[in-house]
Amino acid sequence: MVVTPGTFFEREVRQQRGFTVADKMQVLDIISKKRDGGELSEAEIEFLISKYVAGEIPDYQMAAFLMATFIRGMTRLETVALTKAMAHSGEILDLSAVPGCKVDKHSTGGVGDKVTLVVAPLVAAAGVPLAKMSGRGLGHSGGTIDKLEAIPGFQSVLSKGEFIANVERIGLALTGQRENLAPADKKIYALRDVTATVASIPLIASSIMSKKIAAGANAIVLDVKCGSGAFIPDLDGARALAKAMVDIGTDVGRHTVAVISNMDQPLGKAVGNALEVKEALMTLENKGPADVTRLSLILGGLMLFLAGKVEDPHLGEQVLKNILATGGARQKFREFVATQGGTVRVLDNPALLPSAPFKLPVLAPATGYIAKLRADIIGRTSMALGAGRRKKDDSIDRAVGIVLEGKIGDYVQEGQLLAVVHAGNENTGREAVGQVLRAYSIVPRPVAPPPLIYEVI
Amino acid sequence: MVVTPGTFFEREVRQQRGFTVADKMQVLDIISKKRDGGELSEAEIEFLISKYVAGEIPDYQMAAFLMATFIRGMTRLETVALTKAMAHSGEILDLSAVPGCKVDKHSTGGVGDKVTLVVAPLVAAAGVPLAKMSGRGLGHSGGTIDKLEAIPGFQSVLSKGEFIANVERIGLALTGQRENLAPADKKIYALRDVTATVASIPLIASSIMSKKIAAGANAIVLDVKCGSGAFIPDLDGARALAKAMVDIGTDVGRHTVAVISNMDQPLGKAVGNALEVKEALMTLENKGPADVTRLSLILGGLMLFLAGKVEDPHLGEQVLKNILATGGARQKFREFVATQGGTVRVLDNPALLPSAPFKLPVLAPATGYIAKLRADIIGRTSMALGAGRRKKDDSIDRAVGIVLEGKIGDYVQEGQLLAVVHAGNENTGREAVGQVLRAYSIVPRPVAPPPLIYEVI
Repeated sequence: MVVTPGTFFEREVRQQRGFTVADKMQVLDIISKKRDGGELSEAEIEFLISKYVAGEIPDYQMAAFLMATFIRGMTRLETVALTKAMAHSGEILDLSAVPGCKVDKHSTGGVGDKVTLVVAPLVAAAGVPLAKMSGRGLGHSGGTIDKLEAIPGFQSVLSKGEFIANVERIGLALTGQRENLAPADKKIYALRDVTATVASIPLIASSIMSKKIAAGANAIVLDVKCGSGAFIPDLDGARALAKAMVDIGTDVGRHTVAVISNMDQPLGKAVGNALEVKEALMTLENKGPADVTRLSLILGGLMLFLAGKVEDPHLGEQVLKNILATGGARQKFREFVATQGGTVRVLDNPALLPSAPFKLPVLAPATGYIAKLRADIIGRTSMALGAGRRKKDDSIDRAVGIVLEGKIGDYVQEGQLLAVVHAGNENTGREAVGQVLRAYSIVPRPVAPPPLIYEVI
Repeated sequence: MVVTPGTFFEREVRQQRGFTVADKMQVLDIISKKRDGGELSEAEIEFLISKYVAGEIPDYQMAAFLMATFIRGMTRLETVALTKAMAHSGEILDLSAVPGCKVDKHSTGGVGDKVTLVVAPLVAAAGVPLAKMSGRGLGHSGGTIDKLEAIPGFQSVLSKGEFIANVERIGLALTGQRENLAPADKKIYALRDVTATVASIPLIASSIMSKKIAAGANAIVLDVKCGSGAFIPDLDGARALAKAMVDIGTDVGRHTVAVISNMDQPLGKAVGNALEVKEALMTLENKGPADVTRLSLILGGLMLFLAGKVEDPHLGEQVLKNILATGGARQKFREFVATQGGTVRVLDNPALLPSAPFKLPVLAPATGYIAKLRADIIGRTSMALGAGRRKKDDSIDRAVGIVLEGKIGDYVQEGQLLAVVHAGNENTGREAVGQVLRAYSIVPRPVAPPPLIYEVI
């Protein structure tokens, strides 16, 4: 391209349209700078975000900026400035009333990911206070709040006072996202969604981290999912996102660690809200699937380490293993459910959780080794059964879902049980069985299961 | 970047928001394709433009698309498809009632560019019908319609019937741009203006050519200005724009030629509406400035050649030189002004044209050679005097302007007359004198005047 930015003509045109207000000039200067690959200052980014939230910058200018950012990228300084500007666009939760280092945990979203249900009481039982805001599920990945609401009576909306009081009293509180949490992110995310600017590392990283920073924790452990069921399929992408988020956390003074974990197949066996609560309860009783238990211990160990409770993450894992073995985590979960109004006897008798009327078996179509169990297909099938939301205001069925008996690497014989579909009616159940079969690939030669964890950043 | 377009997540997000309508999916696919540097099909571009004009695609999606196009560029096929889609968004003028090849002429905009006033009657006098729509001036460059309206009584708004009837009768008609001419271009241009996406070769080329194609001519001669007073300052940029426009013209079946001409200093001596009409009259009497005369002959020669009147452009120039010398061009201009309601006796006595009350001399501050005479500064000063519009609906003063006595390469002595400012009041006139002085640079050593024409494409 030969026409340089800020040519005479461009400057002229702005004047022609009556853009004499310095602000309006500055918006065009900022867009042009990013368009041409320049680095924006903190003041320029702060200006852009605050004026956009205030409604002074129209959507079309922000859309042009987002596209320029998508293509040109952002430096570490810019990404941090964007994160801060979005975090400070709303309320920043003050957790200083709670003594000690407050640790938060975030997953970029996977299928069957019930780790928060396990790790939150586990870490709290170890004496690290956990004050966590969680989202609801959207698309194929579930949300912790949706899962907890499978427990009758559970209150997922806490006032700020209740939230902090609960953390002070029992060391653990979980609430839905507050309305005024990073409103800039909410507005920008909605715009990215309709302008093909979602899949950008700096934009994803700043979106996630702005909410974490506004939620007030001192330390953050990130679980970046990577694989067919994650929104980033490849390891390089996951690594770049993890690094970007750790950089942001570090630069704003929050201890931040990221774990890159596999999401080629769902985590654990259960997918669906009540089914996942049951599996979490099993895990809290130290009888859960190996992958759920191990990921919970690894993430929890890092949380203890960041909170200064242990000298290194592996020691943290040992501490948590003991708590798990001695029933301390289960006891803390019980306390937590009771404090937030949930029916505690459900925890002793999981049969009291919502249960689907139809349970359809999925049988192995061949003998061999499971080579694939596509998390994306399982996630979408679970959503189709009613466990997840296609749109933000869809209602969900907390009973339905899928239980996977066979996982990658397992040897199965033709006709053996691969999975069970839990459905609200027989027809959708049958369709789901077909989809689940599609998710599995069975091959004659042995297959190594994928690693659970790729790396810690 | 590691996240590939159309990843699972992106597809998913679209579904989540209820984007089940195929159209809405397609918009995102088109934006993503351009974002990632792909080539769009004619059908995709046609879809985008027609839905945008219909108001079905919102500004923010078009803004994201324009920014992606600005950065990624467009192939020749895409640029042609975009031009056609914009041309066909409104009425395509049918000039088939006028016999012969209809030739149009377009300048990308300069300071002191009154060539249309000369070349139009010149070519019409040579028997090539000219049916031209002209814009009004905006910013530092003037518009032919504004200049003609300095002639008392001149009607610049013709009905379609009058327009065609005049061309049939006297071989020449000039009218303001019709409302329904390439409405897509109008809407997109307004958006580019506020999203920092103006200075893009494919977007500029398609914008200009869509209007030319809709205006119905069979052949088009383009005058691409290059230099400080043009919106493209460098030769490479001007060449790229010229080539893009010639490619478009060729691909849609219009004979198109582009001349790249210098706009480092204003064309001719007069800048300002009535002043330029006077200079055009002088040129039509074969007593005009050399540069105005020469550029008119070159462009006109090309027009005759494209219309098939002559074997080559140089022969065309010869034909026009004779017409100029024998008064044929002046006679045609007279006929044209009379047909469009103008007061013809003004042409015999230019003193009857609007005249400014204050005439302030600009004197050479030093002895030497004129090295610079910045067209951008002169254009803006003329606009500040009231000759041009800053905003679209500003009113203008047709009497004011600047007459440049010294041009680049001229030797001047300190205190010698460099220019005369024609002002509506003394204060703005004095300010203008200061600005005109700023436009001139005088150096001790001889300076070669810039070439009038760089090349023909």
